[in-house]
Amino acid sequence: MIDFRVKYAEYADAFEAALKEYCDKMNFQPSVLTDSMRYSLLLGGKRIRPVLFLSALDAFGAEWKQEMGFAIALEMIHTYSLIHDDLPAMDNDDFRRGKPSNHKVFGEANAILAGDALLNTAFSLMFEAAAKGVEYLYAARCLCDAAGAGGMIAGQSADILYTASEEVSKDELEFIYEHKTGNLIAAPVTMAAILTGEYYFEMKQFGHDLGFLFQLTDDILDETGTFGEVGKTLGKDKASGKLTCVKVYGLQASELQADLYAEKCHRILEAVNKNVDFFHALIDFVRNRKK
Amino acid sequence: MIDFRVKYAEYADAFEAALKEYCDKMNFQPSVLTDSMRYSLLLGGKRIRPVLFLSALDAFGAEWKQEMGFAIALEMIHTYSLIHDDLPAMDNDDFRRGKPSNHKVFGEANAILAGDALLNTAFSLMFEAAAKGVEYLYAARCLCDAAGAGGMIAGQSADILYTASEEVSKDELEFIYEHKTGNLIAAPVTMAAILTGEYYFEMKQFGHDLGFLFQLTDDILDETGTFGEVGKTLGKDKASGKLTCVKVYGLQASELQADLYAEKCHRILEAVNKNVDFFHALIDFVRNRKK
Repeated sequence: MIDFRVKYAEYADAFEAALKEYCDKMNFQPSVLTDSMRYSLLLGGKRIRPVLFLSALDAFGAEWKQEMGFAIALEMIHTYSLIHDDLPAMDNDDFRRGKPSNHKVFGEANAILAGDALLNTAFSLMFEAAAKGVEYLYAARCLCDAAGAGGMIAGQSADILYTASEEVSKDELEFIYEHKTGNLIAAPVTMAAILTGEYYFEMKQFGHDLGFLFQLTDDILDETGTFGEVGKTLGKDKASGKLTCVKVYGLQASELQADLYAEKCHRILEAVNKNVDFFHALIDFVRNRKK
Repeated sequence: MIDFRVKYAEYADAFEAALKEYCDKMNFQPSVLTDSMRYSLLLGGKRIRPVLFLSALDAFGAEWKQEMGFAIALEMIHTYSLIHDDLPAMDNDDFRRGKPSNHKVFGEANAILAGDALLNTAFSLMFEAAAKGVEYLYAARCLCDAAGAGGMIAGQSADILYTASEEVSKDELEFIYEHKTGNLIAAPVTMAAILTGEYYFEMKQFGHDLGFLFQLTDDILDETGTFGEVGKTLGKDKASGKLTCVKVYGLQASELQADLYAEKCHRILEAVNKNVDFFHALIDFVRNRKK
């Protein structure tokens, strides 16, 4: 058995140090642009996408500490999506990770640009990586697809559409899960598989199911968590009429769905003949998280 | 002498057909996402960035009709920047190219996502091109830099900052010109130089000066044009306190600056031992444009 928390911290701390170093060197002018990008990047958070990427590389025997470029790109894309999601015209959320959201600190115009700049800088890092070899180019394209109009942005668009509509269907919920969260949770483990040539289909499926599990527990926490635990405004999804698993299945059945997806994640890993203890522990961590 | 209008139309029409074909095939779900992206892409406009790219390839003897991927990416990046610029939190402009701007038709949330999606799709096209060879990867990185936090977005950020400030200085105006417009006017001709291995420094300088000329005439038109001619709300820059050349130099001196930059463009082209008649005519067209 591994000590999951120690292992998670090893990846997360190494990532945090690399991100901090990157942010310290960032010097875009005017300085408000750099400040607003840095503010949201360094707000903390679980860093689950970079940790997934680095730990999968590690499981497959790659030099994971050498691949911080993609890890930072992953977190930048996630961060830009949060900044834009929090805007008054979108989810209108004043808090993120227990702190004022980007537009509350820098104003809406600067927040829109900070998001655009983070997306663009992520691509800059991806192009830099792509110059290292064809497998890096493929990994970059995998992330581009996951983040794009056929991926995460489709999920955000559907989220807006279905929040406004009366319809409450499983298909629409699954579309949002798959795209809004699933794609960017699946991307890091799929990218690690591409870079190492290991278990592409298994890791893609594992990432997909883990994304569902992550979103299920997120929706459950919005219903059952507290601000102190989660660090963002809660009960908002319900109040704003968002399509959540609790709305579609009810709370009890949502918990069962989460159990089911945790089980699916464990099963698919059995096909991967590598040391995947960390991932088994991660599944239980996500299933039981309180924030 | 070439017939400039015929030649311009040849590039612009070929581009328009390729863009239309691309848009017809776009099928992102939910459909509002595709519709909002398509709406702004197909609003028309001069298509000057794609025309610059294709005509420069043509001047250097490349098969310009084969390179529509980058041309579409250029226009997508330009279009996303306009959608975000027009938002109420930014320039708050209700019209673009004589039609309601994106957020007036699809709402603010969808407009933010349409912009994000166009930027992401542009990068998708750039990665597709990058797979064709190392010169394509370099060209893609050139465009990425021009669009990014050290390029166009820096210009947008400075534009907001200096609009709010009392300061009126030449240095700040030139920072905005260089970044907000100049970088994405210089990128297409620089990319053509990279792809063909021809006159990199000359084309980069030509693009830079043409960008300044373009922005000078844009500011002058905001002061002297009419809605019917230009197709967007005019006099707004002045009313909103934007930093324009007219504010810094006055109208008459701005006209002289435009003449100066037109002359600089002509001169740098003399170092390019290719058939650049089209570019000489283009300079005069930009200098004398009424929209």
